[in-house]
Amino acid sequence: MATDVPSIKLASGYDMPLVGFGMWKVRNETCAAQSMRWSKARLENEAWGIGYLDLFLIHFPIAPEFIPFDKIRHPCFWTDKEQTQVTPLVKVPIRETWQMLEELVQTKNPNGVVRSVGVSEFHTQLIYDVLSYNKLPLSTLQIEHHPYLTQPELIAIAQENGIAVTGYSTFGPQSLLELGNAAAQGVKPLFETDVVKSIAEKHGKSPGQVLLRGCKQRNIIVIPKSNSVDRLKQNLSLFDFNLSEYQIKQISSLDRGLRFNVPNTLQRPIRTFT
Amino acid sequence: MATDVPSIKLASGYDMPLVGFGMWKVRNETCAAQSMRWSKARLENEAWGIGYLDLFLIHFPIAPEFIPFDKIRHPCFWTDKEQTQVTPLVKVPIRETWQMLEELVQTKNPNGVVRSVGVSEFHTQLIYDVLSYNKLPLSTLQIEHHPYLTQPELIAIAQENGIAVTGYSTFGPQSLLELGNAAAQGVKPLFETDVVKSIAEKHGKSPGQVLLRGCKQRNIIVIPKSNSVDRLKQNLSLFDFNLSEYQIKQISSLDRGLRFNVPNTLQRPIRTFT
Repeated sequence: MATDVPSIKLASGYDMPLVGFGMWKVRNETCAAQSMRWSKARLENEAWGIGYLDLFLIHFPIAPEFIPFDKIRHPCFWTDKEQTQVTPLVKVPIRETWQMLEELVQTKNPNGVVRSVGVSEFHTQLIYDVLSYNKLPLSTLQIEHHPYLTQPELIAIAQENGIAVTGYSTFGPQSLLELGNAAAQGVKPLFETDVVKSIAEKHGKSPGQVLLRGCKQRNIIVIPKSNSVDRLKQNLSLFDFNLSEYQIKQISSLDRGLRFNVPNTLQRPIRTFT
Repeated sequence: MATDVPSIKLASGYDMPLVGFGMWKVRNETCAAQSMRWSKARLENEAWGIGYLDLFLIHFPIAPEFIPFDKIRHPCFWTDKEQTQVTPLVKVPIRETWQMLEELVQTKNPNGVVRSVGVSEFHTQLIYDVLSYNKLPLSTLQIEHHPYLTQPELIAIAQENGIAVTGYSTFGPQSLLELGNAAAQGVKPLFETDVVKSIAEKHGKSPGQVLLRGCKQRNIIVIPKSNSVDRLKQNLSLFDFNLSEYQIKQISSLDRGLRFNVPNTLQRPIRTFT
């Protein structure tokens, strides 16, 4: 465990640090090294090793057919590289997937390798459905969350039901620019907005730190990625300043419902069951 | 069956007229009489009677506790009249409710009284989940649909999966004004927008007829309510004119994501399971 990063108690009973390290788009070649740097930045000389998984999520509220690794790009999403082949859906209810996750949990299965289980991109309707049949706690919900997409009702519903919220893309368009995402290119980077810049200046912190801190104060777990050691350190240095309620409101007022990942439609293109 | 109202074929195999009669807010005292007028307007002297239900829907993606009729206002929604008591949720998965609906269907149960089954207010995630376990076809999806809330992806996903879409509140804020709905009072009535007015004038029709016709041309079933016999007749007189594709686009361009009914959050106040 980190000594300097605060944790929150999950419904499973385990603690989860409020700051993690996102690995999406970290290049294969540097992945292990980056993880090690993160590990060092957080853990001060403690060994890097995995004996179990702290948390295992259903990545998306959908069951796509398994496609052999050489046939589809990974992370395998909806289409292959040329966008000619669409991953077919298969008739596997979410409940079945959820129950498989529960089977992996140590309290349910002595050979289980997982401590806590959760979901990602689930909206309210499906969360309430899971809450009607789960045997083990639904510990976390991971969603897109940044000042351009605040989703206050979804977060409130999760937290009031004991589900910790993890926000990804905390910096909004930032992480999508390198993918050539059109929506990301069409808006002002959050780091350059007057609101975020002025709050950062007042606190002598970077805009990124301000956005991460805003999440921390609302008990939202963040998982920023960086390839720079300095920024890795910055992303962990969030616990020596406080945003005022007014500053948090100012940041939230940037909300414009701008989504880079659309779980509502399961992303286009539309697919039918085979 | 009406002779003059076109139908669409449901996945169940039965036909459904593209225009129905919504009963919400028709007063108890006049309900039977209004139904009879509607019946007469559509059916010309055919007897009013029910031997079966054409279509039975899950009204909302939620399982509230049963509250005795004298304890809660009906339609029983989230709170009692004084907003002091919130209807508790119970742990009944959607699948269980869906399977009970299927049991009522004549093809599954010789004593069944229902022909087709569907859902209302379900979003994509939950629709895909139902499609992974349903035994009988999911025939229709009923949603809020008007020019201020067009929901094109949800409609496309439903229709591409063989689910007919029924739009309610086709006139947008119109039907909510009498309830003192703040959002409805804050926007321009659709009948008074330049787009709808000018298209209505061009066709010599009422704004309401234009909105209903726009749905018809996109195979969206409508269920307008009226207490006026003249408007009941108007609402059925939609089949002697055509909107151009451009006019339909003009109407859709009024979209502003304005929702009067928020299934995404299952409406506030937020509730936890008991």
